[in-house]
Amino acid sequence: MAEVLVEIRRGQLVESYHRGHIAVVNSDGELVSSVGDPNFLSYWRSSAKPIQALPVVESGAMEKWGITKKELALFCASHSGEDFHVDTVLEILRKIGVEQKELRCGSHLPYNKEASAKIVQGGQSPTSVHCNCSGKHSGMLVVCKEKGYPLDDYTELKHPLQKELLDVIADFCKYPKEEIVVGIDGCGVPVYGLPVYNWALAYAFLADPTKLEESRKEAVETITDAMVQFPEMVGGSDRICTDLMRVGKGNLIAKAGAEGVYCVGIKDKKLGFAIKMEDGSPRGRGPAVIETLRQLGALDDQQLEELKHHHLPENRNHRKDLCGVVKPIFKLK
Amino acid sequence: MAEVLVEIRRGQLVESYHRGHIAVVNSDGELVSSVGDPNFLSYWRSSAKPIQALPVVESGAMEKWGITKKELALFCASHSGEDFHVDTVLEILRKIGVEQKELRCGSHLPYNKEASAKIVQGGQSPTSVHCNCSGKHSGMLVVCKEKGYPLDDYTELKHPLQKELLDVIADFCKYPKEEIVVGIDGCGVPVYGLPVYNWALAYAFLADPTKLEESRKEAVETITDAMVQFPEMVGGSDRICTDLMRVGKGNLIAKAGAEGVYCVGIKDKKLGFAIKMEDGSPRGRGPAVIETLRQLGALDDQQLEELKHHHLPENRNHRKDLCGVVKPIFKLK
Repeated sequence: MAEVLVEIRRGQLVESYHRGHIAVVNSDGELVSSVGDPNFLSYWRSSAKPIQALPVVESGAMEKWGITKKELALFCASHSGEDFHVDTVLEILRKIGVEQKELRCGSHLPYNKEASAKIVQGGQSPTSVHCNCSGKHSGMLVVCKEKGYPLDDYTELKHPLQKELLDVIADFCKYPKEEIVVGIDGCGVPVYGLPVYNWALAYAFLADPTKLEESRKEAVETITDAMVQFPEMVGGSDRICTDLMRVGKGNLIAKAGAEGVYCVGIKDKKLGFAIKMEDGSPRGRGPAVIETLRQLGALDDQQLEELKHHHLPENRNHRKDLCGVVKPIFKLK
Repeated sequence: MAEVLVEIRRGQLVESYHRGHIAVVNSDGELVSSVGDPNFLSYWRSSAKPIQALPVVESGAMEKWGITKKELALFCASHSGEDFHVDTVLEILRKIGVEQKELRCGSHLPYNKEASAKIVQGGQSPTSVHCNCSGKHSGMLVVCKEKGYPLDDYTELKHPLQKELLDVIADFCKYPKEEIVVGIDGCGVPVYGLPVYNWALAYAFLADPTKLEESRKEAVETITDAMVQFPEMVGGSDRICTDLMRVGKGNLIAKAGAEGVYCVGIKDKKLGFAIKMEDGSPRGRGPAVIETLRQLGALDDQQLEELKHHHLPENRNHRKDLCGVVKPIFKLK
């Protein structure tokens, strides 16, 4: 049963509630703490991206095609479609000699307001590079080029790349491949349904890859180094993933997913945790994520202050009057 | 305890859930049916607007200032900021000789995508007329002009108009005035916290005003006639309130509120019902509203077909692939 994680307060009343599930797991696979049902089964959504990037590193494609760490960080991103994201995607495609039309992620206006307004003001429409998943897709195209896989159906579950990725996910999350429920993600590729516990376990391995075989350990370190070195590539301006990794100074690996999904790895504690908001909304998610970090003792007072707008957002109306606050109320058990 | 009203399905999994409370009440005040807690206490938000419009009619201001039924419908609106809404607000202000700067509702880009894009494309910023509540505020200014109240603090609880409105709300909802929890609404005016049951009761009176004193009965009929005659003024293009009243052909009075609030009056059944989504999201609200109407036998097959995109929305991704559906699963008790 999902528990109330966050209250939406207005004046003297709690107006709305956000429920969810939290699992905190160490790299030995022990469930350290939880709220709600840590085995709740749902789709991992974009929080799986750092693991979906493993084949780029493990295939040796980075060296072969001259892929930089900044570009690798973008493979793990749900980016905001700012100029530096779009330019980087185009540069990756140029390096591997693939045209933009091969990016089969669909399109939407950039999450970033200014970037979105620029497109609308120009009377233009967004293209596939603006899609928040275009980094992940460009990474998939890198692997296809490296391994000589066909490009035109790389999003299909039957494609060799996606078969390989399903194996990687099952192996990394220690979850039987045949029990993973596969759906279609927002960008058309397979999305993986498995328990919240296993999402958290994967992030415990990102935080502490010493439990993995040597070659995978190195690949994981390459990916998490890229994410913490280039946090602006993983999200964008004023995005929680970017802010958390910037403020975390190398200790935190953080990645959001659609439908209220979030995962964090905490290196010095060898922990991973995962959150699934029951209603799929991002509104309660940021407060729940920062509050979990606070209760785990993973943020000091200065870090909490820098992340306050994600932790305890103010509810201001169309006139900018302060109407209420968003307040996490759960206790990790 | 809020119950699950709506499932968000993707492939074979239910990915997210939306919980809520429903109260169905007849004009005798009997709770006919419910889901969750029919006495859940929350803010009524914009679903209170038709009742907040009563002083405009009851004061005689409509005749005095030449206010039309179309304009009255806009007083009850959370409009989309389309040209015909904006022009109507400006026309009301012109009629009462009040400048636009007196509209103290704040501003935001229009809900309507095309109207919003037009402003962004022009490099402009939205003004107070674009705010979804500018109709309600212009109605408040009409009453102030009629009664000689000051204009500059009409949004404050201590202003005679707001004192009057609190009395109207308490009286109309049969709820003790001193127990109403007053907060600040999205547009700066007082917002009323009272049980979902009382919201439903008010809409039962909108559906069947014969239980009210004669003068109020006439005012209610004037307001609900305006709403069903000009449903496009109450919401806008492709908005559920507008579609419901258009398809309802005079039998349904429907008004949304922020934070997952919705109220409907069903004339031929002398019923009102109210829904509060626990998480405050509008995503599950439309399906819950139409499903409630279906279970109450208030929509025939053709009406259900016309409202299908509000009842059983498809979940399509950035590539327009069908990924899943939104499905109401509750049974009215």
